[in-house]
Amino acid sequence: MTIHKPVSDKKAKGKVKKIFDEIKSSRKIKKIPNFWRSLAHNPETLERTWRALQQIMKKGTLSPVTKELIYIAVSITNSCEYCIRSHTFAAKKKGATDQMLKEMIDVVGIANQNNKLVEAYQVEVDKIYK
Amino acid sequence: MTIHKPVSDKKAKGKVKKIFDEIKSSRKIKKIPNFWRSLAHNPETLERTWRALQQIMKKGTLSPVTKELIYIAVSITNSCEYCIRSHTFAAKKKGATDQMLKEMIDVVGIANQNNKLVEAYQVEVDKIYK
Amino acid sequence: MTIHKPVSDKKAKGKVKKIFDEIKSSRKIKKIPNFWRSLAHNPETLERTWRALQQIMKKGTLSPVTKELIYIAVSITNSCEYCIRSHTFAAKKKGATDQMLKEMIDVVGIANQNNKLVEAYQVEVDKIYK
Amino acid sequence: MTIHKPVSDKKAKGKVKKIFDEIKSSRKIKKIPNFWRSLAHNPETLERTWRALQQIMKKGTLSPVTKELIYIAVSITNSCEYCIRSHTFAAKKKGATDQMLKEMIDVVGIANQNNKLVEAYQVEVDKIYK
Amino acid sequence: MTIHKPVSDKKAKGKVKKIFDEIKSSRKIKKIPNFWRSLAHNPETLERTWRALQQIMKKGTLSPVTKELIYIAVSITNSCEYCIRSHTFAAKKKGATDQMLKEMIDVVGIANQNNKLVEAYQVEVDKIYK
Amino acid sequence: MTIHKPVSDKKAKGKVKKIFDEIKSSRKIKKIPNFWRSLAHNPETLERTWRALQQIMKKGTLSPVTKELIYIAVSITNSCEYCIRSHTFAAKKKGATDQMLKEMIDVVGIANQNNKLVEAYQVEVDKIYK
Repeated sequence: MTIHKPVSDKKAKGKVKKIFDEIKSSRKIKKIPNFWRSLAHNPETLERTWRALQQIMKKGTLSPVTKELIYIAVSITNSCEYCIRSHTFAAKKKGATDQMLKEMIDVVGIANQNNKLVEAYQVEVDKIYK
Repeated sequence: MTIHKPVSDKKAKGKVKKIFDEIKSSRKIKKIPNFWRSLAHNPETLERTWRALQQIMKKGTLSPVTKELIYIAVSITNSCEYCIRSHTFAAKKKGATDQMLKEMIDVVGIANQNNKLVEAYQVEVDKIYK
Repeated sequence: MTIHKPVSDKKAKGKVKKIFDEIKSSRKIKKIPNFWRSLAHNPETLERTWRALQQIMKKGTLSPVTKELIYIAVSITNSCEYCIRSHTFAAKKKGATDQMLKEMIDVVGIANQNNKLVEAYQVEVDKIYK
Repeated sequence: MTIHKPVSDKKAKGKVKKIFDEIKSSRKIKKIPNFWRSLAHNPETLERTWRALQQIMKKGTLSPVTKELIYIAVSITNSCEYCIRSHTFAAKKKGATDQMLKEMIDVVGIANQNNKLVEAYQVEVDKIYK
Repeated sequence: MTIHKPVSDKKAKGKVKKIFDEIKSSRKIKKIPNFWRSLAHNPETLERTWRALQQIMKKGTLSPVTKELIYIAVSITNSCEYCIRSHTFAAKKKGATDQMLKEMIDVVGIANQNNKLVEAYQVEVDKIYK
Repeated sequence: MTIHKPVSDKKAKGKVKKIFDEIKSSRKIKKIPNFWRSLAHNPETLERTWRALQQIMKKGTLSPVTKELIYIAVSITNSCEYCIRSHTFAAKKKGATDQMLKEMIDVVGIANQNNKLVEAYQVEVDKIYK
């Protein structure tokens, strides 16, 4: 299946090559991860997604580590192995400790449980929360 | 539907009353939210869930605010209105600003998109992430 | 939005009328629930879904009540209010007690939590389970 | 990734060792499954989850087999391979037959379909179900 | 809750006003829908999302109607009422008929069912599909 | 695990053999895919699912290719690898190009993001969409 194989460096040309170079220099890495190689099948998507991610994950009121933890929490909830592993790698690089990861996981566990208990009992929103 | 109506203060007895009192004093509130009133249909579940939540959401390496943001991120991903609204309330009480909430939401949005792009292209986990 | 309004008795003709009559006599009800009225926009879907549901939910090795509990457990996990409410109604009619519903809900809660803990820690399947 | 590797018997100490011993004697097994080894990264989570599972899955008004079937139904809906395989193993040990599993799967299939048909047509809850 | 109320025209300034004007002229509408008013809490998100949507939903090899049907199929699977209703409106405006919508819904129903049957039986990918 | 192994040709008898023959002649293939072999554990489910799929995926107002794209979009959203791969195979056989697949993927990505942004901001349905 063509689109299910990542784009190699050799086939990276034009806009794709440009974004690959940006990723390498911005992340200080030599090898482009498979996620970006896969998006490269669609150069506009590669560019749009890379730019959006840069804009969103940069330091703001929330620290880059907190943002990575939130990203992993969503990825666990969606059962995305690639996303869990690649963003755990990123989180650690940015300073996340194992303890922080474990506390995040606990929150993800209880939130998933309570989200369903709320559905099960069809809990109505209290006035104070509206 | 009996179990789809929250338990009133009047019907709260024994273990349920005890936990309701704990919730009131620990949260400094006078009115028990509907979530706890619904769980009260099953006193053991009420107690277990309350204790677990206390243990998990307390200050650790992560701050209570960060934990609330992670909780909301999961609740958005699971489309749980009650959970989004009640934990946004809690997050603000603990010091979360609108700016923090908006940055969290942006991460949730892009993570949900990228989780699916990873599935779509069936991206294989890079060795470096394993 | 036309397809977002249920089909009235007056507009039920041909195959739709036939299935509506079957539903009424099989369930001993006089009013067709909104789910079937909505499917009636597509008579083939109405017929196929009604026949499949009859075949699947009938007494087998599992009792009709157990099947309803499983149906509700899925509907809670998918956050489908209509499905939770209509199948709780059906479950009770077939003999489910509040206690049974509450025990089912507890299982749904912990399963949803543990499903995510498994993802979070990327737990590998033990050989014994394969 | 440290937290993505299960904790070995050798590294199991204190509270972790105690819970591991409980699991072994309660389940009459000699080898701790990977799920519990993974939770052991966080001893409080290991203890809390083990205790909750014991409390929830024990015989109640619902039989342990019915509870396992409900657990598997949720795990299928959440696409959790580990959970499907380990709880199918548990269900069979407690007496579930292949026929029961297949009937449960049929209910899960039709429930997932109908949950989405309800969303698609935005079906309103009938008064009788409220 | 401030961020849970859409931004009014009066409060739309700078970048927000500019994007609101673009939306009005591009869609030939006079009233900005609530989705864009909500994103306006975060002007960068508003701009990025609007630009991405324009780029993605425009005529390509797939027609705008086909793209809207795919969008609705995802929204049904995720149970997003707002998204289902607003994109059904858009699909119809672009030429989708009720018949097309109903055929799309049938595909969504069976796909959701079969996705879960695949999980339930843990079906291995045939070599020919890889 | 018995039900987690596909049914071989040798074990296909009666109704199962009949449906297997239908699949082979209708699809012009010699080898039954694992999905159908797994459903064969439950002959009624095999027959019902095969008939339903035939009825739903055939040319209607929507082309078979458009229906396959919608099917894949749902399967991506549900993270079903088997379904993504087998229906990408089917879509290509029916004439889908890589470009069509990539445009479909982009819609799936943005729809998943926007579905969650709608939840995050709890966007109310505009009157015009109802």
